[in-house]
Amino acid sequence: MKLYEMAKAPNPRRVRMFLAEKGLLDEVTCIEIDLAKGENLSTDFSAKNPMNKVPVLELDDGTCISETTAICRYFEEHYPDSPKLLGNDANEKAIIEQWTRWVDFYLFLPIGMGFQHTTDYFAHRMNPIKEWGESNIEQAMKFFDFLDNHLKDHDYIACGRLTAADINAFCSVDFGKVVNLRVNESHPHLKHWYERIKARPSAAV
Amino acid sequence: MKLYEMAKAPNPRRVRMFLAEKGLLDEVTCIEIDLAKGENLSTDFSAKNPMNKVPVLELDDGTCISETTAICRYFEEHYPDSPKLLGNDANEKAIIEQWTRWVDFYLFLPIGMGFQHTTDYFAHRMNPIKEWGESNIEQAMKFFDFLDNHLKDHDYIACGRLTAADINAFCSVDFGKVVNLRVNESHPHLKHWYERIKARPSAAV
Repeated sequence: MKLYEMAKAPNPRRVRMFLAEKGLLDEVTCIEIDLAKGENLSTDFSAKNPMNKVPVLELDDGTCISETTAICRYFEEHYPDSPKLLGNDANEKAIIEQWTRWVDFYLFLPIGMGFQHTTDYFAHRMNPIKEWGESNIEQAMKFFDFLDNHLKDHDYIACGRLTAADINAFCSVDFGKVVNLRVNESHPHLKHWYERIKARPSAAV
Repeated sequence: MKLYEMAKAPNPRRVRMFLAEKGLLDEVTCIEIDLAKGENLSTDFSAKNPMNKVPVLELDDGTCISETTAICRYFEEHYPDSPKLLGNDANEKAIIEQWTRWVDFYLFLPIGMGFQHTTDYFAHRMNPIKEWGESNIEQAMKFFDFLDNHLKDHDYIACGRLTAADINAFCSVDFGKVVNLRVNESHPHLKHWYERIKARPSAAV
């Protein structure tokens, strides 16, 4: 299987970290796509993912699967003997999916919007709206507060153990650097959790 | 189980339609939350969903699950004898999740942004940015084109049969009305699919 990705980008990192925690990283060959050079906009890549985003998983039969959580779902279902990171039963699966979506919509997406709209990184392809970018960065900061409060009474985001919810939240919190959001003493519980997750070997892949 | 929702809102509709297709609508008691009156911002409701959004599923033990797709996942996993709408195997589950996310990020979210930022509906709670709203409506229109092209060769969005991908796309396409996006002859394949899905009893619940 091939995993089209960009090593520095946050969504591919979520997939790699998920695979590392499941012991499945060796199952994929990683192929770097240079977003700055627009390699994701080529006709070849569009055929793999019409949305032109990384990561994309290409199965050996040519089937392509886009979207981070869909790729994680594929591995969770296809390798039932690997550690379950998306939940053991209906309640856990729903709660982990709820958290993944909260992280996506209230942290990851706002950070991405903040970056796109307050910097000129993609200005050749879009029209940045500074006011919109700034309001998104405020939204992401509020989610840092929310996470800090949640982690006051929880060692992990959900289910009392490491799950995909932690992986997604950790990679998203780290992604905050692009808009100068960093975990520090003002969020002590988030910081404690962040440092514990960062110490895992999977955080370095 | 209680389903906190707003009958006219598109995300609760996705859950009701999903439950209707699975024959599980009678499993929940629907409780209307009036978003225009801000009932979702109350302390009681925040305790159920700190993001203050509908729908929320409250289990009989008090556990609350937010996010449309997480609620659907709960029913898919908890009622394994009901028709499977999230896929039968790893490949199908991943492809349906991919499509659900494409619909969320490239259609549903842009329509919502377009509505929030080009009308004054939520102006008392946020600062609408017209330029941002208009660019989102353009994005949603592009996804209509994309869906029309996809449905030229497919009777359903994924897996050759009705799945949650169709339900999510159908409710999202219908939601387009709030920004004057309507399915018509300019998208003949999308129109044909839309009319077939609309004819299902589940589309009226």
